[in-house]
Amino acid sequence: MARAAADATAAGLTGLVVAPGPDLVYLCGYQPTAITERLTALVLTAGREPALIVPKLERPDAEKAPGAPAVRLVDWTDGDDPYAAAVPLLEPAGRYGISDNAWAMHLLGFQAALAGTGWTSLTEALPMLRGVKDGDELERLAAAGGAADAAYRGILEVRFAGRRETDVAADLSALLIQYGHSQVDFTVVGSGPNGANPHHEAGDRVIRPGDTVVLDFGGLKDGYGSDTTRTVHVGTDVPDEVRKVHGIVRRAQQTAFEAVRPGVSCQEIDRIARRVITEAGYGEYFIHRTGHGIGITTHEPPYLVEGEERPLVPGMCFSIEPGIYLPGRFGVRIEDIVTVTENGGRRLNNTPHELGIVA
Amino acid sequence: MARAAADATAAGLTGLVVAPGPDLVYLCGYQPTAITERLTALVLTAGREPALIVPKLERPDAEKAPGAPAVRLVDWTDGDDPYAAAVPLLEPAGRYGISDNAWAMHLLGFQAALAGTGWTSLTEALPMLRGVKDGDELERLAAAGGAADAAYRGILEVRFAGRRETDVAADLSALLIQYGHSQVDFTVVGSGPNGANPHHEAGDRVIRPGDTVVLDFGGLKDGYGSDTTRTVHVGTDVPDEVRKVHGIVRRAQQTAFEAVRPGVSCQEIDRIARRVITEAGYGEYFIHRTGHGIGITTHEPPYLVEGEERPLVPGMCFSIEPGIYLPGRFGVRIEDIVTVTENGGRRLNNTPHELGIVA
Repeated sequence: MARAAADATAAGLTGLVVAPGPDLVYLCGYQPTAITERLTALVLTAGREPALIVPKLERPDAEKAPGAPAVRLVDWTDGDDPYAAAVPLLEPAGRYGISDNAWAMHLLGFQAALAGTGWTSLTEALPMLRGVKDGDELERLAAAGGAADAAYRGILEVRFAGRRETDVAADLSALLIQYGHSQVDFTVVGSGPNGANPHHEAGDRVIRPGDTVVLDFGGLKDGYGSDTTRTVHVGTDVPDEVRKVHGIVRRAQQTAFEAVRPGVSCQEIDRIARRVITEAGYGEYFIHRTGHGIGITTHEPPYLVEGEERPLVPGMCFSIEPGIYLPGRFGVRIEDIVTVTENGGRRLNNTPHELGIVA
Repeated sequence: MARAAADATAAGLTGLVVAPGPDLVYLCGYQPTAITERLTALVLTAGREPALIVPKLERPDAEKAPGAPAVRLVDWTDGDDPYAAAVPLLEPAGRYGISDNAWAMHLLGFQAALAGTGWTSLTEALPMLRGVKDGDELERLAAAGGAADAAYRGILEVRFAGRRETDVAADLSALLIQYGHSQVDFTVVGSGPNGANPHHEAGDRVIRPGDTVVLDFGGLKDGYGSDTTRTVHVGTDVPDEVRKVHGIVRRAQQTAFEAVRPGVSCQEIDRIARRVITEAGYGEYFIHRTGHGIGITTHEPPYLVEGEERPLVPGMCFSIEPGIYLPGRFGVRIEDIVTVTENGGRRLNNTPHELGIVA
């Protein structure tokens, strides 16, 4: 919390207003039972004791949070104005960073209570608050990646043909749990034309021999995320175009990975992956950014996207996941979680990239 | 959507900006796979076609939403400014209502892109957007309440003494699912002193003979919520004070229920419940509002709380849930979901209020 407050000062902010969700978990270990219309917010200001505003009836929960001893609890009661409780904690003309996922109604409440304050989202103001991982965090991310690797090896052994996408997704989910995940966040099984929708999850479609299938799966293990994508084919009779497209995506992923080193910009990694795909003639079918940060959430800064000029720093962790999506036909994506070291990139998951063959 | 836009005009707004979550489900049936930093928003303006801003890679999902045929989809691509895509859809000096749970980062994005606009939360501006239920919605809420009743009858048959709160919570969860819930949102089992924390969920505490136990459980059945609380006692040897406190809470609940009729204000129902408890000498131990609306979410307007002057209207549905919490000792709460009819209140769950005796 002290580092975050100091970072806020360095970024020209008076302080931070942290809402329930990953920022609050990261900074003081507190996770309310549910995120609701009742205001909960941690206020961090350099040189002042951190203050956590909580609804009175949730105070006993907040008192049990790991960070509670370092925080002053300020409660408010149903029927009171929670923003009035916040006013003494904020500078009337201060400039604050607020968690991205804070509720708009709460931001509007702060803005109304203190009309002279300025606000900016934490991703905008302090995107690297959770962006650089320490040794313990890297170990956890690597352990989550290792568990995802084991799940992928397991899924190669199950039957695909004749089963629904949702059946294979359930297998993937069970494998992630079996290998130590506490929570499964997504198990995309995009078979045939469904693979051409990068955010398709898993549906009723029955997988057929000859289908190309995108598998994108991950969740949390010991509080840290996994996120792996591999593309497989049902049967050994792989059409030339599938091989070709898979080869291009694989090359794009590898080329982008090899470009990772401190000082290179995030957008440069995106450009490098995109260039490989564009030069191969498929640029218009790579319809998303190249990657996103990962940590206690599976989507967080830094984003590998055009316009993100931030330089890579050792300890950053993110996905590199180029893809090609041919509408109505099939899709291919390959995704690894990568961390930046002094000497280049290091993958935190490690199953082979080749087109998996399943039965 | 047309009604919502008209309601917005009547409330002095230019239009509505609706974020993923219950408002978006209610208005156009669309629920993105995950709520993320990527902007999705439905813009409703009277006299204009509704427009749904979506990330390009989620467009195929949005196209499948039940309300999609009535909506113009506007997509944006990773790396573009999503707020720029929104600018042509908004009036530069307009005043908009925005979903409570819209992300602060998105509100800040809109405010930066259109500095002349004014914003207010939907709960503030249009609290009754989802507040008055139609016949189909009432049937679903009653069906959810009936399933919760069945779950409560079932839990009275299980053993409490010698088992952990989490074991009983798991039984409650299984019963809710057995009786048709698709999703369990909470299964509070607050035994002994844990019952005195109104938001305690269920912990490792082993329940003992002589414990008073608060059971508060609910979830979604066919898309609509249940939320019931009953208080039980382990064994027939009930201390006088438990009987007394239970009787007061029961009387507070019944008195408040009997006051429900069109035209009475929300805060009046809160005051009536509170008065019964205060006059009995326990006012300081009733530390939350008397109730909250329920529908496709389990917490929504109208709130039965001091300061809420809104009159009750037929079709509103909310909890009436007074409680008394004696720190370190025990708690008692009784909660029913009630709908307003022309002739008074009607309960949507119906198990007896008496102190249940469990083994």
